[in-house]
Amino acid sequence: MKEKIRMGMIGGGKDAFIGAVHRIAANMDGLIELCCGALSVNPETALESGKMLFLPENRTYLNYEEMIKKESEFPENERIHFITIVTPNFAHFAPAMMALEHGFNVVIEKPMTLTLEEAKLLQQKVEETGLTLCLTHTYSGYPMVKQAKEMVKDGALGKIRKIIVEYPQGWLSTLSEREGNAQAAWRTDPKKSGKSGCIGDIGTHAAHLAEYISGLRITQICADLNIVVEGRTIDDDGNILLKFDNGANGVLIASQIAAGEENALNIRIYGEKGGLEWFQHEPNTLLVKWLNKPTEIYRAGGGYLGDFAKHNTRTPGGHPEGLLEAFANIYRNFALTLAAKLNNEEPTPQMLDFPSVYDGVRGMALIENAVASNESDKKWHDFIV
Amino acid sequence: MKEKIRMGMIGGGKDAFIGAVHRIAANMDGLIELCCGALSVNPETALESGKMLFLPENRTYLNYEEMIKKESEFPENERIHFITIVTPNFAHFAPAMMALEHGFNVVIEKPMTLTLEEAKLLQQKVEETGLTLCLTHTYSGYPMVKQAKEMVKDGALGKIRKIIVEYPQGWLSTLSEREGNAQAAWRTDPKKSGKSGCIGDIGTHAAHLAEYISGLRITQICADLNIVVEGRTIDDDGNILLKFDNGANGVLIASQIAAGEENALNIRIYGEKGGLEWFQHEPNTLLVKWLNKPTEIYRAGGGYLGDFAKHNTRTPGGHPEGLLEAFANIYRNFALTLAAKLNNEEPTPQMLDFPSVYDGVRGMALIENAVASNESDKKWHDFIV
Amino acid sequence: MKEKIRMGMIGGGKDAFIGAVHRIAANMDGLIELCCGALSVNPETALESGKMLFLPENRTYLNYEEMIKKESEFPENERIHFITIVTPNFAHFAPAMMALEHGFNVVIEKPMTLTLEEAKLLQQKVEETGLTLCLTHTYSGYPMVKQAKEMVKDGALGKIRKIIVEYPQGWLSTLSEREGNAQAAWRTDPKKSGKSGCIGDIGTHAAHLAEYISGLRITQICADLNIVVEGRTIDDDGNILLKFDNGANGVLIASQIAAGEENALNIRIYGEKGGLEWFQHEPNTLLVKWLNKPTEIYRAGGGYLGDFAKHNTRTPGGHPEGLLEAFANIYRNFALTLAAKLNNEEPTPQMLDFPSVYDGVRGMALIENAVASNESDKKWHDFIV
Amino acid sequence: MKEKIRMGMIGGGKDAFIGAVHRIAANMDGLIELCCGALSVNPETALESGKMLFLPENRTYLNYEEMIKKESEFPENERIHFITIVTPNFAHFAPAMMALEHGFNVVIEKPMTLTLEEAKLLQQKVEETGLTLCLTHTYSGYPMVKQAKEMVKDGALGKIRKIIVEYPQGWLSTLSEREGNAQAAWRTDPKKSGKSGCIGDIGTHAAHLAEYISGLRITQICADLNIVVEGRTIDDDGNILLKFDNGANGVLIASQIAAGEENALNIRIYGEKGGLEWFQHEPNTLLVKWLNKPTEIYRAGGGYLGDFAKHNTRTPGGHPEGLLEAFANIYRNFALTLAAKLNNEEPTPQMLDFPSVYDGVRGMALIENAVASNESDKKWHDFIV
Repeated sequence: MKEKIRMGMIGGGKDAFIGAVHRIAANMDGLIELCCGALSVNPETALESGKMLFLPENRTYLNYEEMIKKESEFPENERIHFITIVTPNFAHFAPAMMALEHGFNVVIEKPMTLTLEEAKLLQQKVEETGLTLCLTHTYSGYPMVKQAKEMVKDGALGKIRKIIVEYPQGWLSTLSEREGNAQAAWRTDPKKSGKSGCIGDIGTHAAHLAEYISGLRITQICADLNIVVEGRTIDDDGNILLKFDNGANGVLIASQIAAGEENALNIRIYGEKGGLEWFQHEPNTLLVKWLNKPTEIYRAGGGYLGDFAKHNTRTPGGHPEGLLEAFANIYRNFALTLAAKLNNEEPTPQMLDFPSVYDGVRGMALIENAVASNESDKKWHDFIV
Repeated sequence: MKEKIRMGMIGGGKDAFIGAVHRIAANMDGLIELCCGALSVNPETALESGKMLFLPENRTYLNYEEMIKKESEFPENERIHFITIVTPNFAHFAPAMMALEHGFNVVIEKPMTLTLEEAKLLQQKVEETGLTLCLTHTYSGYPMVKQAKEMVKDGALGKIRKIIVEYPQGWLSTLSEREGNAQAAWRTDPKKSGKSGCIGDIGTHAAHLAEYISGLRITQICADLNIVVEGRTIDDDGNILLKFDNGANGVLIASQIAAGEENALNIRIYGEKGGLEWFQHEPNTLLVKWLNKPTEIYRAGGGYLGDFAKHNTRTPGGHPEGLLEAFANIYRNFALTLAAKLNNEEPTPQMLDFPSVYDGVRGMALIENAVASNESDKKWHDFIV
Repeated sequence: MKEKIRMGMIGGGKDAFIGAVHRIAANMDGLIELCCGALSVNPETALESGKMLFLPENRTYLNYEEMIKKESEFPENERIHFITIVTPNFAHFAPAMMALEHGFNVVIEKPMTLTLEEAKLLQQKVEETGLTLCLTHTYSGYPMVKQAKEMVKDGALGKIRKIIVEYPQGWLSTLSEREGNAQAAWRTDPKKSGKSGCIGDIGTHAAHLAEYISGLRITQICADLNIVVEGRTIDDDGNILLKFDNGANGVLIASQIAAGEENALNIRIYGEKGGLEWFQHEPNTLLVKWLNKPTEIYRAGGGYLGDFAKHNTRTPGGHPEGLLEAFANIYRNFALTLAAKLNNEEPTPQMLDFPSVYDGVRGMALIENAVASNESDKKWHDFIV
Repeated sequence: MKEKIRMGMIGGGKDAFIGAVHRIAANMDGLIELCCGALSVNPETALESGKMLFLPENRTYLNYEEMIKKESEFPENERIHFITIVTPNFAHFAPAMMALEHGFNVVIEKPMTLTLEEAKLLQQKVEETGLTLCLTHTYSGYPMVKQAKEMVKDGALGKIRKIIVEYPQGWLSTLSEREGNAQAAWRTDPKKSGKSGCIGDIGTHAAHLAEYISGLRITQICADLNIVVEGRTIDDDGNILLKFDNGANGVLIASQIAAGEENALNIRIYGEKGGLEWFQHEPNTLLVKWLNKPTEIYRAGGGYLGDFAKHNTRTPGGHPEGLLEAFANIYRNFALTLAAKLNNEEPTPQMLDFPSVYDGVRGMALIENAVASNESDKKWHDFIV
């Protein structure tokens, strides 16, 4: 890389949660420079946030339209290379579309849009423009998740037979959206969050993880979505039976009312020859289970790991890397891809290993299909994209 | 107790697996004496096994009919008090019925019978005779399972909202029934095992555990049973969505093809105020999770535990007790109940805390309902007993 | 075996802790029959305890001298084969010696005696008589400890370089001996317990475990014994640096004031090629660590385990066995050894695999040497037996 | 903060390990900007590394003297605020002293210097100049370590009685210094590393952790340092008995030949009322053990944590943060302290919570005392600074 990749941010003002995480992820490896932002719809917050982030005044914008227009007029060697969108779900599509139309690559939080239709429009625009859209399915950025993917691909487990993926959280066990929790408020409001609460917010992560590691695609589902906490208008819990395109069966469990759970995403994949288990709270460990041999503890940083795991680790074994590094892996791969393209080079498979607009479309399809299946009396619902 | 409780055994000759486990469980506390047996349908095995167990020759029988008849003619102070039946499923009903008809109490392996109909007949006979039938749902014998049950009952978690129970095993990942594995052979043979393989063998344990701890009853299910290993004629895997009588939702996952898993039964129960997690491989630990406090590690032997946990533990904290002790708890409680009855005393709630004929009927109902649900296109199937 | 091995017990009346554990261990496999006892120095307790254990009145004795004499007059086919001694330390030697002198084999709790001198006298008597003395270093009865031993012996780790063994308990964190805790009372009383409290009670277990698994012998120590709780007159804590006969170094940490710890015995052994880790709270797991490969989780019941582990397990993988089974392994091996001898057969190495009088002598030597080293200003103290 | 804090780096060229870690830590929060470097003694490497880091050519220096001189001539609003020194131990003192003399604050890797004498000179210079020196004892940057410290300080455990701290690694199990491992080469070379290998490199971390959390000071030690791998000239392993200034006892175990261990730093602290356990591989968990209550699992991000833990966490519970975040906490606190000083404000206790020159002196004293104790026949050696 000849210069740092330049980034702008939409949303993510002070007090926002995920914007700060994106900035840490972008900062970490010193490859990306935050150059401008439309950080809040509240002008005061936007300005204050710009100061806190040491942004120049002329690149601290009050709305995204202004930012996209002005930035596209900067000379090439100052102009940002990409825009990160970290607003609530309902405010993803418009800025993403406008960014693409003005030639900016895009990083966007999941779920990608409010509706499947919007997602498909973004896909179309990405295909038209040749620009790159990166979706931050954070958990696929962990090195041991990549190791799992590589082992499945290499056939270490044989044909995959069963996948259990769970994402239990407890933070919505009470009606915290009415107690001043801003994160809870928009996530439980269908107008801002979309058709689904729990499945949209975390079920999409779980489904992506299952498909990402296994390389399989969900073909049928049987969904039981629940509103557990009285007074809520959108699912806060769901259990989904799955069928995959190779005939494997599966279960996806997502819940925001699993009292006492933090962010206990976990996955188990079983094949003919062995199984894999990964748990997000201890992300540097991957259990590899065998039919007639001791279970092995694969550890991030191990010399025996594959190329993808190694490429996505910064320190030797025993130096725990966490969620922020997983997030930074996505940003780093995205930045390396942009840099390669800028140099007219072919990005390597390792560089290209970040979730894309196609993953975003599948996530939106999960939401649509899960809601439809939940409303149906029929057991199996075809997963339609 | 004035004397040891006297026991006879049907099945369980040398080389049988579960018979030996029953004998260890019965021996452990020195309250029960094995006095006779019809240990095998193979006469030689029966005689050899009798010798190995130091049984007198005149009480080593060649078939169960003979044993039940002869034993019922012994004087009261020599006659056995109960008969344990450890044959394959298809051979549970007839000896159990005959034992009850001759006045013997019964211990029986799960699933209780081959069909729900048989199970109901046993229930009727137990009610008629006033005798005691104990079903060895082993896992409910663990002290930390009892602690979980007591905490739920006491309202520590508030209203229960969600139950996830899993029983993953990997031992049938290959067609081991054709490679001389006798355990696998009868369990995968519908004539010996019944309508269901995996759900019958281990799904029943999982469902019992969920109902035992939660005190709830399954009212609706949506079952996806699978024959994963080609060449098998009976389910070796299943995923079931659950609804409980208080409105809680749940998931039951049972598998015998989860390659690399041993006997990884586990359960998580979430209520309004907190959650519980128990894992059979580390049975002396119960995780208790709270909304806004640190998770607590309850440990067998802890002075802070309830009466039921304490009654079912033999050693102080830090002295791991295992499956054989859990099994022995069932035998001990059963024996104490018989002794109380013999003395015309009322057994305490702790003594009566072992699975009964009613649990056996619900287990058989699970099998029937799961198979019916699996065959149906409808999403929800009412759980009918 | 043609008949059950017959056992008598000295000590272990109702309310005693370890006596009950010995009986469970002896009962478990149905190979041993408790025939008589001198269960308490309190005559009432002795009689009541005899009744509780269903002993015949004529074999419920009021003191051990009477028991040993009377029992030695029984006809051979009724006479007990061995005597288990479960009194406090100070009351081990006399009954053990008398038992041996009357031709009875002996099982005895650790530490074997009150002094090293007594221990050597027992050793001499055992050698003279050819009888068998078994010392219940329980933890060496665990299958995964045996697996560890076998792997070290087979050279899997290469030359052993370092051993860390710890036995942290918290139960003496307060002066519970003055609050009616009978177990604490005699263990903290030098007249009943011996020269050392903590090292005698649990340090001996830790040292035995280290020597048992590694096959090495401690040759030098540097001991720091502490009386941490004010008002106590005997060590309740100790840290000891170790040197072994092959040049390996080590550390032994034992404490009864490690507040909040249960019975957290653990050991780590490092060799040239890899390391082993075992933790008593999860005894069915042995971690095997390698220089350039993933750590392996060896599990009790695994088909890949060695003969000694398999011989000392009753159930397949995933059926947790615990301390009582480890204890029962010692009794079973001892009983099988006696039975072989009775039949004039050579016991197999697996049968002979229980702690002996020689281990008892080394345990007493540990106590003497640790106390001497603690009192010395010199760093290294030769471990003299 | 009005502007980013400006940083220069000495050492840490491409292929160096710890320099990259420092840069990530400095980058992460967007508060610090790397402005210049003397990144290697090899001019080519220095230049290439400067390019890789997007440094301007005029601030890419070929040696540290040049850098310090030139940088001190920059105008105040461009001049760096501090210099990070990430060279091998022998090359810490001279640049640190020169930096301080030119008015630059300093961040320095541990151990701080090659000798205790040098360390004291640095302390004197820091006191003279009023500048800030930060020592990167990384592990004290973890939020759960800070929580442990706060709980001890608040008396949650009562008086501290015993501390066990271990730092087992396996990476020097073979003579890897002769196989091209550059990290191993200088660390096992006394001329570059100092008097001690293992104790200097990782024993100092362990001792710092023990003193940091407990607030106690080591007063006496009894050290057994070992050269385990033949051909090495400096300790690669050590066991040290400890006494603390409140009378508590302890053990410090450090090893680089614990085959199969990664970076398994762990600490257990026991007081009158309870105990703490922390393990670096799972740094977001702190076990809090109590005499008569269940053990509690404190987790990073928990709302119940103290101010210091919260200040040093970036994400809510369940989002694992790791070593790089711990490292970044040190940099962030250091940067906030510098910014406060620049603004003539009093840094808060949370800002000032990073290891200082005084910790560096104690670390060097540990090395000197451990080597002296090891060479002595006397058991206890006074810890002299």
